[in-house]
Amino acid sequence: MDLEDVTAPACCAPLSGPALGEDDAAELAGVFKALSDPVRLRLLNMIASADAGEACVCDLTGAFELTAPTISHHLKVLRQAGLIDGERRGTWVYYRVVPERLTRLSGLFTLPHLASA
Amino acid sequence: MDLEDVTAPACCAPLSGPALGEDDAAELAGVFKALSDPVRLRLLNMIASADAGEACVCDLTGAFELTAPTISHHLKVLRQAGLIDGERRGTWVYYRVVPERLTRLSGLFTLPHLASA
Repeated sequence: MDLEDVTAPACCAPLSGPALGEDDAAELAGVFKALSDPVRLRLLNMIASADAGEACVCDLTGAFELTAPTISHHLKVLRQAGLIDGERRGTWVYYRVVPERLTRLSGLFTLPHLASA
Repeated sequence: MDLEDVTAPACCAPLSGPALGEDDAAELAGVFKALSDPVRLRLLNMIASADAGEACVCDLTGAFELTAPTISHHLKVLRQAGLIDGERRGTWVYYRVVPERLTRLSGLFTLPHLASA
């Protein structure tokens, strides 16, 4: 038996791994709910691909034909799901992805026979 | 410039990669909507971790305190999202994951500096 990584939430072991408990499934479903919106996916894409690893909310808002409060709402949902983090510097908030969270999601969909290939 | 894999839907390039178009974002949001339910995540987990790579609907239904039609509905949503496929053999339908789809989702969350580590 492999040693357990106590820093890894049970929620994000591979789907091909041990049984997902009810609480972990509920938590994970919430993360996917945050991802189940096209605008939020495009925002996450813009933040993940931004130069220097961070995107100014001023640039994100300008890319959509949506109001600033609507973009702020979507960013808040992504932030509450732990997918992005924001830091205010002067007038603007700058967002970056939370790499640990994205890496865990990547691992969730890894299949063992493919991972060992 | 790398050669483009024309078999790969643009929807599932890494989030840290090129801009996600509106259509691709909408398609991908639909996949995450299918994943945004705890019962569906547990079903997908059971199918992905099943011995011999497939799970009988008879075993899946027995694992939840839900009616067979409810489980069937959730399986249909996962199937329509392209995450699982089913085959009827005799009385029962047997489900397995669609590895290409899961691998694309895994790649979506891969971050370049981590992938090269």
